[in-house]
Amino acid sequence: MSSRAVVLLSGGMDSCVTLARALEDGHEISALHVNYGQRTQARELHAFSHICDHHLIASRLVVDISHLAAIGGSSLTDPAIEIDDAVLQNTEIPTSYVPFRNANILAIAASWAEVLNAHSIYIGAVEEDSSGYPDCRDVFFRAFEDVVRLGTRPGSDVAIVTPLIHFSKRAIVEEGVRLSAPLHLSWSCYRSEEKACGTCDSCALRLRGFQQAGIVDPINYAIRPRYL
Amino acid sequence: MSSRAVVLLSGGMDSCVTLARALEDGHEISALHVNYGQRTQARELHAFSHICDHHLIASRLVVDISHLAAIGGSSLTDPAIEIDDAVLQNTEIPTSYVPFRNANILAIAASWAEVLNAHSIYIGAVEEDSSGYPDCRDVFFRAFEDVVRLGTRPGSDVAIVTPLIHFSKRAIVEEGVRLSAPLHLSWSCYRSEEKACGTCDSCALRLRGFQQAGIVDPINYAIRPRYL
Repeated sequence: MSSRAVVLLSGGMDSCVTLARALEDGHEISALHVNYGQRTQARELHAFSHICDHHLIASRLVVDISHLAAIGGSSLTDPAIEIDDAVLQNTEIPTSYVPFRNANILAIAASWAEVLNAHSIYIGAVEEDSSGYPDCRDVFFRAFEDVVRLGTRPGSDVAIVTPLIHFSKRAIVEEGVRLSAPLHLSWSCYRSEEKACGTCDSCALRLRGFQQAGIVDPINYAIRPRYL
Repeated sequence: MSSRAVVLLSGGMDSCVTLARALEDGHEISALHVNYGQRTQARELHAFSHICDHHLIASRLVVDISHLAAIGGSSLTDPAIEIDDAVLQNTEIPTSYVPFRNANILAIAASWAEVLNAHSIYIGAVEEDSSGYPDCRDVFFRAFEDVVRLGTRPGSDVAIVTPLIHFSKRAIVEEGVRLSAPLHLSWSCYRSEEKACGTCDSCALRLRGFQQAGIVDPINYAIRPRYL
């Protein structure tokens, strides 16, 4: 198979591994990065560029939807809301949830896929070991696939591919190692752009994954708590 | 009922009448206008502002998604593609179709609705007497409603309300007159910003609607062909 795929590449670990899977699946890649006014967007864009360079991906699109920050409702985009420390057994939706963010991102990806005649969109969403965001669940992506089928030209046939949806963070680390994904170029921290803080939700989930896999996370941290 | 509704207000006739319906339904209104790099976006924004002023609507959001123009694929956003004259019996998707545009717009509306705690999104889409865009069909909106239910916080309960979906353009004109919608402030032309051209798809559908209703369209046209 050698068709084109649009890959959502935030620059985080999960999207870094997802891109490696799309390459393993034999696709030509068009990489999409979306800034939505999050605190660490410059650092994430940097990671996006480095990962694309690493794989020699020329087809790139960077889109700004910082109106999501204007709309508000999330600690990721609103400086007035604190970014919580991780509570990994939390059952509530954390303050970092950006209302309906993935639908906004997937809509852009689907517009681009339709124009490129790409038949897959890869997104590195994780349901089980995630932060409990409603728009990271498999049922959401299957429903979005219906919307794409109904809302694009007949014959567009765009699949939403979520290779990590039922993976634990540990399994994602192991998959990244198997695929030689450039995890050293990825960035996950919600709080800082210099050294990863080690204590926000995103750092905690990442570190725990590496620790469970018995592998040292190659990026720099301010502190590296044990989450096992 | 006095709950809040997000109303998509492009500034065209259909959205102008849809807003009047949302007001008749007793909602507090938050009006959303989206620029997507279309040729006539300054004129449409002007219409949006005038219609909001007319109804004394203070809650307004203007969002720019001109990345849809960068993605391309439409005569509305790509100066290299001609805007076709209307072919009202056309069965193909016209060049003015912007790939998956309504999903992009509804995703923004749903993010805003979730933050505002609004339980309805009004959109003036028309299926029957429309240009045959796939993302203007009732099945698309019902599928999008599922996506919103699955992708937002439990209890968000946002309905996608499409009061004109099965209306003819004639019926829309008549409904606008019944509701005293300020049709003189609306703008529909795809081509020009001074006087409406009278011959693009959007002008032709609008003029035919007024002519069938036996009412003179109050806006200025360069020419007013008879479409009956």
